[in-house]
Amino acid sequence: MQILLSKKIKLKARFFDVDSMNVVWHGNYVKYMEIARCELLDEIGYGYEKMKQDGFVFPIVKMDIKYIKPIFFNDDIQIEARLLKSDGFLKFNYEISSIKTGDKLSIANTSQMAVRICDYTTCFELPNELLMAINLYLEKR
Amino acid sequence: MQILLSKKIKLKARFFDVDSMNVVWHGNYVKYMEIARCELLDEIGYGYEKMKQDGFVFPIVKMDIKYIKPIFFNDDIQIEARLLKSDGFLKFNYEISSIKTGDKLSIANTSQMAVRICDYTTCFELPNELLMAINLYLEKR
Amino acid sequence: MQILLSKKIKLKARFFDVDSMNVVWHGNYVKYMEIARCELLDEIGYGYEKMKQDGFVFPIVKMDIKYIKPIFFNDDIQIEARLLKSDGFLKFNYEISSIKTGDKLSIANTSQMAVRICDYTTCFELPNELLMAINLYLEKR
Amino acid sequence: MQILLSKKIKLKARFFDVDSMNVVWHGNYVKYMEIARCELLDEIGYGYEKMKQDGFVFPIVKMDIKYIKPIFFNDDIQIEARLLKSDGFLKFNYEISSIKTGDKLSIANTSQMAVRICDYTTCFELPNELLMAINLYLEKR
Repeated sequence: MQILLSKKIKLKARFFDVDSMNVVWHGNYVKYMEIARCELLDEIGYGYEKMKQDGFVFPIVKMDIKYIKPIFFNDDIQIEARLLKSDGFLKFNYEISSIKTGDKLSIANTSQMAVRICDYTTCFELPNELLMAINLYLEKR
Repeated sequence: MQILLSKKIKLKARFFDVDSMNVVWHGNYVKYMEIARCELLDEIGYGYEKMKQDGFVFPIVKMDIKYIKPIFFNDDIQIEARLLKSDGFLKFNYEISSIKTGDKLSIANTSQMAVRICDYTTCFELPNELLMAINLYLEKR
Repeated sequence: MQILLSKKIKLKARFFDVDSMNVVWHGNYVKYMEIARCELLDEIGYGYEKMKQDGFVFPIVKMDIKYIKPIFFNDDIQIEARLLKSDGFLKFNYEISSIKTGDKLSIANTSQMAVRICDYTTCFELPNELLMAINLYLEKR
Repeated sequence: MQILLSKKIKLKARFFDVDSMNVVWHGNYVKYMEIARCELLDEIGYGYEKMKQDGFVFPIVKMDIKYIKPIFFNDDIQIEARLLKSDGFLKFNYEISSIKTGDKLSIANTSQMAVRICDYTTCFELPNELLMAINLYLEKR
């Protein structure tokens, strides 16, 4: 699938994110992915606040995660979010890797759909505002 | 301090709530307290949704927690929330205890203030709607 | 896929689980699924504590979730976890539904692998202890 | 109270941390405080992993938080953790402020006690290893 844009962030696995095996609890990866996705959207000037102003929210409709190697307490990790070319969905894939070893730790995918706030109707195409923000960013690069 | 009302709930400490020492992470007690508080407010017919309809939100302005004994994974606990008599604040205290041993595990306090949603102004008195809901409930008992 | 066992639990969507759109944040479904899965495993006498005693942990290696309709604040929901027949993995699927309307809100899948605590080696077959616990439970029913 | 050491960190309020009023849910401040506290302890070379190696854990035994102004979604905040001089407890206070306006948003306190891992006995004095780490760091500055 064609990658339009990607964004890498770095973070540390915190104490409150690890479980009784001293590794990050699997549900907390969803937060890491959201941080990277939001940073990418903020960078193209189309974060959640801009979406709301335009009258849209983008709920997650599908998500899958593959856990390859554990993330231990205090590990420094990189999360790369990649915006994929797609007609109806806002699609991202993610790769989490260890900063120390470079090992791939997890891969994941999310799909979001645009929903109009005024009447909660689902849009089967991405709003023009979003497509323009992506194109504008790609041109400026 | 005078206790107006109290409500006891029971729950089990879940895997996602324990930390690497296999005990409930201290920040998760705040969720347990919120469950008990919301159940009490729902019982008197003045839950967060009713508050919103009346034009108010009740943010927490102060909280303190004392951790007496740890809560281990899978422990069954009881949380008692007690609504305290107070003029300007919505005040609760809490007691968390072990269902198996009866041991007191934690005590806590929260204070909430009423804030008008329309203009985000703080009310220095509790809204009449809330006081009436409390009185109505106390009379019916 | 063949369902060996299933378990239904009920819970209420709490305030701390909803996001700024007043619906349960997508990452919190992972907790709901874990509660149902753990209750099922506890029922067959093979919860996480028994696993540990036998020298195993069962990290999640794969997870996917489909979000069909939103879960709103204070909604009462049912989560059904179903243990699936599988050789190498501990596989579950999940269905979240509204108690009020019966609507299907979400479906999901998780796969876990057995890992030996002593040397962190992955087992490519499920431990006998687990298979025996499942069979024993199925016979007794 | 005498401040021995302090550490400032910066972070952004994430989508998964805000509640239905679009402000950070009060329980999530506990995570922000933990991040700052752990960074300070890591800086003096006495993080949770070093503690464990020395045979100790430091559970929180008391916590209080005052919420002064709300933290909104995407706000950039600073958390300052200050290690206080204290005999029996590991005491910190915290100040959360807005990076944009400089406004004080929250103040808080935590107390931790040393517990021996081998027999779960509480130490009524701080371990020498910790006191030495603090002194060594203060001398080097």
